[in-house]
Amino acid sequence: MSDVRAEIEAANKKVMAAVKQGDVSEITHIYTSDVKVLPPYMDMLKGRQAAQAIWQGGIDMGIKEVLLETEEVTAGGDVACEIGRYTHIIQSPGGETMTDKGKYVVIWKQEAGSWKIDTEIWNSSIPAAG
Amino acid sequence: MSDVRAEIEAANKKVMAAVKQGDVSEITHIYTSDVKVLPPYMDMLKGRQAAQAIWQGGIDMGIKEVLLETEEVTAGGDVACEIGRYTHIIQSPGGETMTDKGKYVVIWKQEAGSWKIDTEIWNSSIPAAG
Repeated sequence: MSDVRAEIEAANKKVMAAVKQGDVSEITHIYTSDVKVLPPYMDMLKGRQAAQAIWQGGIDMGIKEVLLETEEVTAGGDVACEIGRYTHIIQSPGGETMTDKGKYVVIWKQEAGSWKIDTEIWNSSIPAAG
Repeated sequence: MSDVRAEIEAANKKVMAAVKQGDVSEITHIYTSDVKVLPPYMDMLKGRQAAQAIWQGGIDMGIKEVLLETEEVTAGGDVACEIGRYTHIIQSPGGETMTDKGKYVVIWKQEAGSWKIDTEIWNSSIPAAG
């Protein structure tokens, strides 16, 4: 279990580093070939290219940095469920820095000997405006 | 696997029936004792009473019916991950009927011989206003 968690946290660090560099072209390998991405305000998306495109979209919209904090990992066989918290540091077009904080669930699966993201879903913890 | 999925779908039917009756007082037993609930626009909540309170809050805000459609179940040992789609049928204070559609991930765990919800997270697929 601690190995699974360590592998997951190592993969998350790669994502954080890629976002900070503004280049997510190299992170598709952390996803399974049929990954399901469940973003807020959009329909479910499938596939590695979609997963990368969602990150690229976030960067294009001003995300400068993402922090991923694993809270809990439960593994059973080739499946591991991660619960965590995220922070997005966003620069608005006007140059103002904003923060979004929320939580996520990621389902990891063993594929070709390593743990890969098979499903990811998240939502913001910040109350809706209005 | 088909048994797991059948058990999950049976539990979801109980939730749907309870919401339709407007009485979620009897559904706490489908949650583990330390269930984590990750609702949009709120911080993570823990425990059966919180899970029930979230449903009660939805009913109080006008949810008349919920449809839960299981899309995929992956089980490993005592853990099963469900991906699904939800529809909320909501009656506004003015009497207008509205619909929210979205998606969810539920982590089920074996507890006392049956599958119970240990984590649930969801988000809307409808584009944010404004």
